Amino acid sequence: MPRIDPDRLRRLLDGINAFGRDPLTGGFDRIGYSAADMAARDWVADEMRRDGLAVRRDAVGNLFGRFGPSEGPAILAGSHLDTVPQGGAFDGALGVAVALECVRALRDADVAPVCAIEVTATAEEEGRFGGMLGSQALAGIAGAEWVSGARDANGVRLTDAMRACGLDPAAADTAALPPGHAAAFLELHIEQGPVLEAAGMPVGIVTGVSGCCVLQITLEGTANHSGTTPMPVRADAFAGLARMAAAIPAIADAVGTDQSRITIGKVALHPDEVHTIPGRAEFSVVLRDTDEGVMRRLRAALEDALADAAAAHRLRTKVAERSWIAPTALDGPLRDVLTRAAATCGHAAQHMPSGAGHDAQTMQTLCPAALIFVPSRGGISHAPQEHTDWADILPGAEVMLAALKELAGNGPRRP
Amino acid sequence: MPRIDPDRLRRLLDGINAFGRDPLTGGFDRIGYSAADMAARDWVADEMRRDGLAVRRDAVGNLFGRFGPSEGPAILAGSHLDTVPQGGAFDGALGVAVALECVRALRDADVAPVCAIEVTATAEEEGRFGGMLGSQALAGIAGAEWVSGARDANGVRLTDAMRACGLDPAAADTAALPPGHAAAFLELHIEQGPVLEAAGMPVGIVTGVSGCCVLQITLEGTANHSGTTPMPVRADAFAGLARMAAAIPAIADAVGTDQSRITIGKVALHPDEVHTIPGRAEFSVVLRDTDEGVMRRLRAALEDALADAAAAHRLRTKVAERSWIAPTALDGPLRDVLTRAAATCGHAAQHMPSGAGHDAQTMQTLCPAALIFVPSRGGISHAPQEHTDWADILPGAEVMLAALKELAGNGPRRP
Repeated sequence: MPRIDPDRLRRLLDGINAFGRDPLTGGFDRIGYSAADMAARDWVADEMRRDGLAVRRDAVGNLFGRFGPSEGPAILAGSHLDTVPQGGAFDGALGVAVALECVRALRDADVAPVCAIEVTATAEEEGRFGGMLGSQALAGIAGAEWVSGARDANGVRLTDAMRACGLDPAAADTAALPPGHAAAFLELHIEQGPVLEAAGMPVGIVTGVSGCCVLQITLEGTANHSGTTPMPVRADAFAGLARMAAAIPAIADAVGTDQSRITIGKVALHPDEVHTIPGRAEFSVVLRDTDEGVMRRLRAALEDALADAAAAHRLRTKVAERSWIAPTALDGPLRDVLTRAAATCGHAAQHMPSGAGHDAQTMQTLCPAALIFVPSRGGISHAPQEHTDWADILPGAEVMLAALKELAGNGPRRP
Repeated sequence: MPRIDPDRLRRLLDGINAFGRDPLTGGFDRIGYSAADMAARDWVADEMRRDGLAVRRDAVGNLFGRFGPSEGPAILAGSHLDTVPQGGAFDGALGVAVALECVRALRDADVAPVCAIEVTATAEEEGRFGGMLGSQALAGIAGAEWVSGARDANGVRLTDAMRACGLDPAAADTAALPPGHAAAFLELHIEQGPVLEAAGMPVGIVTGVSGCCVLQITLEGTANHSGTTPMPVRADAFAGLARMAAAIPAIADAVGTDQSRITIGKVALHPDEVHTIPGRAEFSVVLRDTDEGVMRRLRAALEDALADAAAAHRLRTKVAERSWIAPTALDGPLRDVLTRAAATCGHAAQHMPSGAGHDAQTMQTLCPAALIFVPSRGGISHAPQEHTDWADILPGAEVMLAALKELAGNGPRRP
């Protein structure tokens, strides 16, 4: 029987995390198309070659190591290698490492898959350029117009960043997998939330990914002297924002579900001076739910609260919808494979939605996709403090191994 | 009878405003100890000399033009010449121009004052370095320790800025006026608020200046992923800030007076990213009232609201009191002089507090001080749109002239 080798898995993850580590913070800067990101890909490609995998890279930097038959469809397994700025050691990299460790375990157990397995390391999942480019290109849904126009937060063009890595942005569409190539996509990822840890549950099997709506809202009032302007005649843009934001907990209770998330993460006041009433407040609102109807109700309630705040504080409002991504249900039969695999391994597993976006949801538009979660300590992610104990990684990795073994099948023994 | 010459007054203000004007915005950048500020002082000094005044400058850059007896006490009249960045044409400069025009009018009417009048142009009133240095130095309350440590928002040291203007910061204490020198201080200033305009009142006679408390508050929670972290377990620092800020209107109603002002003007979130729950919110609260007991009650109510918000959102709080300036009552008998002067001139005048700080409140610690307001269009100040019609300036200037005439007395005709 194939078995995960925890020490080998750990060395593999450490090898990836030799790239982009910030010794001052313990965090990782391996943002998409950075030198560290590309160097990590080169290193993983070398590991794959040493394992005898057939290595391939595509036009957007996705990396594949094929195990098994050189022709025919493949089970894709993996995740991404890029991180957010000052990200953690596990987000993405763990999924790539587990997929490669599974292949190593199958190889060491002399399992010769009937269907090939392609260890997959996707590019630019973290959205430096606003998308999830690697898997979107695989699924054939990375539009050429978007690719040519996308910029990062510092104004760097995606096309320039790709060219600096030796990639041809005009060829991005060639990364689309041909019909029938991907039989399935399996991803293991840290939960990045507190649910599994709180439940004492080693494995999560993801039912679907929440939809996500990003609004950019402006409240416009009148900047004025904080000492001379009586309260009743003010048009205080921050007071309006506060009134609207203070209504969010009640909105989530009244209209939302336990999967609803409403977040104001970014706020800019103008002029942002201690002694001046804010004349303008610009802020983001991100709302998520696993049910698109609930998302619509949440949005309507937020807009009502905004109108109420604007009326109370004599403000004008502007609401721009930056994105509306519908919830995605992951493949049911593939989820059943994971559920059986967990039972076979003797690991308790919890079905749960994902609040965060993942490559699996993009791949679901192309082929059946499944996602395994392992617990995140304190629910913390996208930070140097991101952590999962190795004891909490092993069960998820074993479920992945068992599922891959079932899906790829066991062919004739290799010579 | 001496009479204000509106055209001459306007040319004088225009002359001052030749310095620091931004042709793109129509605003003025004559910040304390800038080249434009110092050049404006030189120009006003030349005007004073042309008028036969005895010109004197002190160690911090305050400028005086003395009219009348060269010995003995003086009635000081004026305001400041510096502006905030992108300030308006009237804030400060108008008060200097009106004081000099009053002296010109007295001179032209052959009034020879028994008590000298010193047209006064104070330095650094707008608080580039956090104080009100010119008048504080005159009053002998600009501490040497503060002078040596003060920096502007860009980190420039006050001492370096003064030296660059040829001033010796170590001599700042020599600017303190000797006992008995200042018999009174009279200032004319734009209201910078909407009260006079709304009341259709040409003149305000200020009873006192609101006290001002500046708090710097930090709410500390946990930054986390906006998609994976359920609402009930979040420690969202911005949600806490919003809950506290949304309570402000009710606090002002319940505990405050019609002179209460509570303002959150400056907010910084960390990490301030669209998809991340804010882990830390740092913000300013400025509270003002004309009654120090009310200020204390407002502050206590704000701290209660902060504690409530922190408890509701699982946050830690830190409150730093940046400053606590008690309300100042201006001199009663001097106010009566202004009230009589307004009646003599036939101008309706309204007694009112000032929500903003002024040189007059500092000078009140040294000698009787009085403050005349003229209306501000739309209550707007500290902005290029700051405006007062000349028809609204004349009544205030006439009240100043009549008050100076009464206070300085009419001596024997000059030869």
